[in-house]
Amino acid sequence: MRHTHLDPRDLDFLLYEVMEAESLAERARFAGLGRETFDAIVVTARRIALDHFATHHRASDVHEPRLENGRVVIIPEVKAALRAMSEAGFLAATHDAAIGGMQLPHVVATAAIAWFESANVATASYALLTTGAANLIAKFGSPEQKAAFLPSMFEGRFFGTMALTEPDAGSSLADVRTAAEPIGDGRHHLTGTKIWISAGEHELSKNIVHLVLARVRGAPEGVRGISLFIVPRYHVGADGMIGAPNGVTLGGLIHKMGWRGTTSTILNFGEGERCVGWMVGEANRGLGYMFHMMNEARIAVGRAATAMGYAAYLYSLDYARTRRQGRLPGEKDPARPPVAIIEHPDVRRMLLSQKATVEGAMALILQCARLVDDAETAPDESERREAALLLEVLTPIAKAWPSEACQESISLAVQVLGGYGYAREYPVEQYYRDNRLNQIHEGTNGIQALDLLGRKVRQEGGAAFVALARRIAATAEEGRAAGGDVAPLAESLGAGLARLVAATEALAAAAERTEPARALANASVYLDMASRTVVAWLWVRQAIAAARLLASGTGDQRFLRGKLQAARFYVRWELPKTVAQGDLLRQLDATPYEMEDGWF
Amino acid sequence: MRHTHLDPRDLDFLLYEVMEAESLAERARFAGLGRETFDAIVVTARRIALDHFATHHRASDVHEPRLENGRVVIIPEVKAALRAMSEAGFLAATHDAAIGGMQLPHVVATAAIAWFESANVATASYALLTTGAANLIAKFGSPEQKAAFLPSMFEGRFFGTMALTEPDAGSSLADVRTAAEPIGDGRHHLTGTKIWISAGEHELSKNIVHLVLARVRGAPEGVRGISLFIVPRYHVGADGMIGAPNGVTLGGLIHKMGWRGTTSTILNFGEGERCVGWMVGEANRGLGYMFHMMNEARIAVGRAATAMGYAAYLYSLDYARTRRQGRLPGEKDPARPPVAIIEHPDVRRMLLSQKATVEGAMALILQCARLVDDAETAPDESERREAALLLEVLTPIAKAWPSEACQESISLAVQVLGGYGYAREYPVEQYYRDNRLNQIHEGTNGIQALDLLGRKVRQEGGAAFVALARRIAATAEEGRAAGGDVAPLAESLGAGLARLVAATEALAAAAERTEPARALANASVYLDMASRTVVAWLWVRQAIAAARLLASGTGDQRFLRGKLQAARFYVRWELPKTVAQGDLLRQLDATPYEMEDGWF
Repeated sequence: MRHTHLDPRDLDFLLYEVMEAESLAERARFAGLGRETFDAIVVTARRIALDHFATHHRASDVHEPRLENGRVVIIPEVKAALRAMSEAGFLAATHDAAIGGMQLPHVVATAAIAWFESANVATASYALLTTGAANLIAKFGSPEQKAAFLPSMFEGRFFGTMALTEPDAGSSLADVRTAAEPIGDGRHHLTGTKIWISAGEHELSKNIVHLVLARVRGAPEGVRGISLFIVPRYHVGADGMIGAPNGVTLGGLIHKMGWRGTTSTILNFGEGERCVGWMVGEANRGLGYMFHMMNEARIAVGRAATAMGYAAYLYSLDYARTRRQGRLPGEKDPARPPVAIIEHPDVRRMLLSQKATVEGAMALILQCARLVDDAETAPDESERREAALLLEVLTPIAKAWPSEACQESISLAVQVLGGYGYAREYPVEQYYRDNRLNQIHEGTNGIQALDLLGRKVRQEGGAAFVALARRIAATAEEGRAAGGDVAPLAESLGAGLARLVAATEALAAAAERTEPARALANASVYLDMASRTVVAWLWVRQAIAAARLLASGTGDQRFLRGKLQAARFYVRWELPKTVAQGDLLRQLDATPYEMEDGWF
Repeated sequence: MRHTHLDPRDLDFLLYEVMEAESLAERARFAGLGRETFDAIVVTARRIALDHFATHHRASDVHEPRLENGRVVIIPEVKAALRAMSEAGFLAATHDAAIGGMQLPHVVATAAIAWFESANVATASYALLTTGAANLIAKFGSPEQKAAFLPSMFEGRFFGTMALTEPDAGSSLADVRTAAEPIGDGRHHLTGTKIWISAGEHELSKNIVHLVLARVRGAPEGVRGISLFIVPRYHVGADGMIGAPNGVTLGGLIHKMGWRGTTSTILNFGEGERCVGWMVGEANRGLGYMFHMMNEARIAVGRAATAMGYAAYLYSLDYARTRRQGRLPGEKDPARPPVAIIEHPDVRRMLLSQKATVEGAMALILQCARLVDDAETAPDESERREAALLLEVLTPIAKAWPSEACQESISLAVQVLGGYGYAREYPVEQYYRDNRLNQIHEGTNGIQALDLLGRKVRQEGGAAFVALARRIAATAEEGRAAGGDVAPLAESLGAGLARLVAATEALAAAAERTEPARALANASVYLDMASRTVVAWLWVRQAIAAARLLASGTGDQRFLRGKLQAARFYVRWELPKTVAQGDLLRQLDATPYEMEDGWF
């Protein structure tokens, strides 16, 4: 069965009614663009995604990349799909037209990219890692580096990776041990081992551009001694021509539970052959550069989770409408035909919960993309600054919340299908396996929680958190003023915000008076609480827009009623979970913190 | 790495300090047994489980059963393990000594069986389905049927299945269409197709005994027209001798996300060759008989979930103690060695949460087993009756809660391992895939929710619920009297019980005044709320026992401190989630109920 992976009505609603994407066309960078172009881009992405990516979703899982005589063999559909995607220009969607990009707003590019991820996240990953690596070179690379790598990366002739993790340096990048020995001209010889490198080896492109964290001999210990290097699989001339192999060898493939179509590799640098890396920017500042890419990558994780959750939701919705089983309570006549299972209230609950999750997650991801646009192109300096602050505080939420909530949502899709949901003959179990990775990679969700509570909420005297709270309060106010069905939702949002503020203040006060580990011990609860509040905010904004359109009689009325119902579901079913979380946090509960190793 | 799958200290604590298993030896049925025998049985199960089952846990996943020239091929380790298990008598653990059983209390047998499931649930399933089918024949079969099948099933010469589901009759057994045509002597010719039949075809035993739901020609529509048949794969003489094939053919294998080692089959009855079934008991009463086995099977689902969650927990605990990564907040010197990750508060939270879940689940499962013992052998009639009532109301909880909570718990184990948790080179991802089935089979958790709220809570004027509430209140009272660390937990339990009672009464009142579907629409929330309250009850009982032992200075003091801390965690972190649930239920929230198909 071919099914729709995202709902175009929802993307339109979010892009134009909630994120006001059309207004971006007024900015100089996007001059000449407008809704027609934006729509054409998203439709193109959808077409390529459904025609070239969705078609081998299962095949790329069943026939995962394998080693054959030292070569990594991947089914041919992957290469074909990536060619279609790069030929349509999606590897440089947001880049300057001057260097071959489409110069699109991020918010539009995000909607487009989500189509690829909903159709086949494993295949899309090769492209998206390339985009991420290219963005980093575009931002911090020298003119020589840009000339050597960017055109080939944007064309899809070279693919990219990010090579951070080592066997003993995963969450703790301070312990990176890969060594770099200067050989002059900014070049270094690298030696060391990296692990979990996605897309680390394949023959899908002519070359692979690894962005590698390493430590120059004599550099300080810890994160202040880490530099960033461009390490191509094959040497590259200044003109982008490919030369001999560059001493990056495959130590092995790792076999994952899901997301199998993307190779996960152990890579050895400078083992046997010499391995030359080009230093990016200045020595010892590598982690800062990498975090530029990392923040983007973290939002991309949330986007991928959202896309998979969305695809699973729509599949289970379609199934629930066609599968007939059982009768409603109160129907005593067994000779009456069974009803479509969407008629069963518990199935409807599972579908509505999924809708509230995936559409809420999509709003979150598009909001982050819109903030990237605003941070870069808003006319007003203070607006740019505020957008950048909001983006800081929302990034850990955008990474972690969709990865968890969409996993629960996909689990509901499995449940709607029942036994079929658990069978590999149907697609939802694969989403369940694929998406589980999103809680782990690009910084585990525990790391995101520490980032939010330990850094983001406190940075610049709490400016980012204050900016977020102000936005949420404004939405609550607007919703109250809107009246009708929206007002009670806005009321609950206001109460939720007050709980979050109280918990935040209590934790800030605790951080002053107690040891840091104890104050941070419940960071994960805080992250979940803040996430629920933020998603409720985005739902109230959607409810306001839906009510406005309903009142004006424009748009698909049934779709808009559904938006209001999903908003109500989120605010009534999900937001109230922050009451108990707030209690725990305000009490600075220390139950896990005080648990001793010997007591387990 | 060979790891411990269950914690023997915990099994001892639960069996003897909480469930008071030793006192069972005073009953006539268990005369001659005692703690020494019980311990020997559990130790034997553990030895066989670790030596024969755990050893091919991964292999039975990677090399799942496959069709080869029409035969189902299974790796040889499976047969060898099952032989060891049946030779030790575990297929008839609780059966009368007179018919070859060990005549053990269920509470002890449950602890023993959990070892097999924690080591390799897929292999254990062949045995446990056999036990379930044998129990049913023992209870409802004719003397002739017992003689023909039971000895062979207890010996493991014949294995069993339960064949309920059809392509159009899954959750709705009223729609079973498999037909039975009488041929005299209680024998019938069966025709029809069953799906999702676990262990439906294999060559692990000499014969396979299917217990099949079918409809005798002319029987009433619906559940009142369903009969139960014994359908052997090969004909069986009255003496148990095996004859020719009996018209049960394999329609195909289904490929599952996990639990792969157990075949999942489509079976055709009477296609081509004639298929003879022996009717069990009376015509049209099949569903009632099957539910006897089903209730047992539902508790077994919870037990399997518990066992897998437990194994994942202990694996991640061991990993967290040995894996070194990162430094604690406040440690500024990057040259200091990394700490074991159990030192990180967020990792400790994930471990404590797992401990609270899996030990709470084990208490729940052993409690149910103890109630089976009491319902059968308590000296006092009123005690037997109360135990039977409690068992009714606890069965949907024992099926559903461990299947969900242990899935979250296994997900935390994956998270503790990080990338390694997601890699098939480590065992935890398999538990994650395997256990997901438990929310689906033997009645989806949505069905369990309807069973609890629509039937169990209301049956006999609410007698079962009242009995449960009385037990919980008594524990709260006992805990308050115990004082010290236990009193505040008991206080919270009392408040949780009051919330559950209020929600139950509100729902009962609503059922009277509104349409039944609306009253039942939030059954899943109710099931979760009731489950959390029950598990908190079991944790407070554990806390009372631990405090008593700590005060008397007996037992492993550190283990007992851990018990108190886990009880505190459950009561402070998990039980308060019922506050928001109670609000929703008392308001009879109708958000999902009122969602319309066209609004999605």
